Amino acid sequence: MIDIDPWSNALADYGRLFSQFGMQEIDSAITSKLRGKHRLFERNIVFAHRDFDKFVDAAKNGRKVAVMSGIKPSNEFHLGSKLTADELIYYQKEFGAKVFYAIADIEAYADNGISFEESRKVAVSNVADLLALGLDEKNACIYRQSKEMRVMNLAYIFSKKVTYNMLRAIYGERDISLYMSVLTQAGDILMPQLEFGIDYTVVPVGVDQDPHIRLTRDIAAKLGITLPAATYHRFMKSLSGTEKMSKRNPKGIITLADKPEEAGKKVLSAFTGGRTTVDEQKKLGGEIDKCVLYDLSVFHFENDEACAERKRKCLGGRIMCGACKKEVAAKVRIFLEEHQKKKEKLVDKAEKIIEHSN
Amino acid sequence: MIDIDPWSNALADYGRLFSQFGMQEIDSAITSKLRGKHRLFERNIVFAHRDFDKFVDAAKNGRKVAVMSGIKPSNEFHLGSKLTADELIYYQKEFGAKVFYAIADIEAYADNGISFEESRKVAVSNVADLLALGLDEKNACIYRQSKEMRVMNLAYIFSKKVTYNMLRAIYGERDISLYMSVLTQAGDILMPQLEFGIDYTVVPVGVDQDPHIRLTRDIAAKLGITLPAATYHRFMKSLSGTEKMSKRNPKGIITLADKPEEAGKKVLSAFTGGRTTVDEQKKLGGEIDKCVLYDLSVFHFENDEACAERKRKCLGGRIMCGACKKEVAAKVRIFLEEHQKKKEKLVDKAEKIIEHSN
Repeated sequence: MIDIDPWSNALADYGRLFSQFGMQEIDSAITSKLRGKHRLFERNIVFAHRDFDKFVDAAKNGRKVAVMSGIKPSNEFHLGSKLTADELIYYQKEFGAKVFYAIADIEAYADNGISFEESRKVAVSNVADLLALGLDEKNACIYRQSKEMRVMNLAYIFSKKVTYNMLRAIYGERDISLYMSVLTQAGDILMPQLEFGIDYTVVPVGVDQDPHIRLTRDIAAKLGITLPAATYHRFMKSLSGTEKMSKRNPKGIITLADKPEEAGKKVLSAFTGGRTTVDEQKKLGGEIDKCVLYDLSVFHFENDEACAERKRKCLGGRIMCGACKKEVAAKVRIFLEEHQKKKEKLVDKAEKIIEHSN
Repeated sequence: MIDIDPWSNALADYGRLFSQFGMQEIDSAITSKLRGKHRLFERNIVFAHRDFDKFVDAAKNGRKVAVMSGIKPSNEFHLGSKLTADELIYYQKEFGAKVFYAIADIEAYADNGISFEESRKVAVSNVADLLALGLDEKNACIYRQSKEMRVMNLAYIFSKKVTYNMLRAIYGERDISLYMSVLTQAGDILMPQLEFGIDYTVVPVGVDQDPHIRLTRDIAAKLGITLPAATYHRFMKSLSGTEKMSKRNPKGIITLADKPEEAGKKVLSAFTGGRTTVDEQKKLGGEIDKCVLYDLSVFHFENDEACAERKRKCLGGRIMCGACKKEVAAKVRIFLEEHQKKKEKLVDKAEKIIEHSN
């Protein structure tokens, strides 16, 4: 049975992840080792891991560490992509980890028919977002799948190490192209160790990506090299509240390229945890676990105090959804205005990075 | 049911190739269009094709044509590899076809654990053989799989065009790595059209390679491009006479790097079509269809007259195997001496070709 499906946008049942799939909880043994506090860990957004404790120790002991992520350059960053980017950048700052960032332009072409010319433009925008979010490009290796031969070579070599039984146990019966793309992702994840002399790599992902992590760790075990670590974040809900925020559901997302006014309007029509009537809401408080507004606040847009205050007011029935929406919409607008201003100045730099990337 | 297996060294049952697999016979409609006579066609060594008539017409009409082949650089050329090389070079001369030659170094690493350094040396020797056999390197594109990104990118894109049913129908249930390698071969075959502006490509192969041709033609059909043509040669028997000459059976081969004396000795102990007793042989003649010596003569080492004379004497019981062996061994020795002398002078050029190859 396949319990985690990386190609679905259903929200996860986190219950069995620890017992059944062997993920570990992020606990104080780990957080106590972090120098700076970060909302990702403080708020339990990053809530699970594999071998992240070992990665942290390796970094603290001066080993060469890396953090690996990537994107299919088919769309602008949305708040889900921003979450991963924030993790990437935090690990770069916290551990001095070299960032490896794969731009999967072949996949964009093969899956979505996006030409290399088009995807190059999207990639420049994605990289400008990364820079605006704080990426230090001097300690980063950003590459395009169509140019980085080594990843494909590794995928090819890995294909000799895996059996259908391994692939089917993890992914179920799937297309050959899908198996090729997961082997390519394994190539992305293991390239820092195999080609760049990195000792330990961590991969920040949503829990839905765990199958790729398990496959890659299985391959690393077969190769006799260090198994890459992973950290797992909870999903942000889409604006409609029914599924994870994903580019597969374009109406449910806010992108970093949205006009601030438009993004604000999206927030005003987002799904909330509000009760049927005002009286009920005053009496019972909101259903905060279902609320998209609260997700926006916690995952991205408000500091600890503001989050806590919003929660208190909501659960105490002291704020109605209309007012709450206006407040959160304002925060989203302000963030986007500032982000886009920063980003504009970084597009040339992003263009150069892509130009000189493998 | 899988009837042709590219990974077996069994000799083929040619019977059903035309009826069941839709290959066409090489007939006078084709051979009459060839300017020069060539043993490959005169002796029915190249005996079947797909769309070669169309390829010939395209070439005659001034379209840009190419011939594609390649090698896994794990061993020296043997007489089977020489056969394909002869075809390649003949098509280059006859049609002005640009030669595309893939050196599958990743495959050599993944399959046989041969390092890129090692396989590079073998590749230089293979290319020097090609030059000594007559390849015009000015109308050729020789590339290494590890360096030619475009082939891998195509393989990736093709993986979206094929289904398991297609692959299973052609190859049966196989390892994922095998499917990846056949998609890579499809990338090799279609790259001239897709990336180099070639109008028509022909691929000279043994019949055992027809599954790759069919797969590649299926992919080309899905892409809406010209289906590559193919020509098929009969197998040379291994020296033991029981299977095709293949590097999988190292004792049964003569390589172009064998010392002439050693190769001569191999011929002296080769399997022949001789009868049990001299009397019987004088009375019935030899079983020439089973005879490795006759294969050596026809496939490589003797001119039309000498071949015909050998056949007459054998079937008429006028030559015994011992004498025949000595004659053929002498021809093999002479060929190797001359070839190796030529080759020695071409190693530097081959080195440069590999150095500057993608």
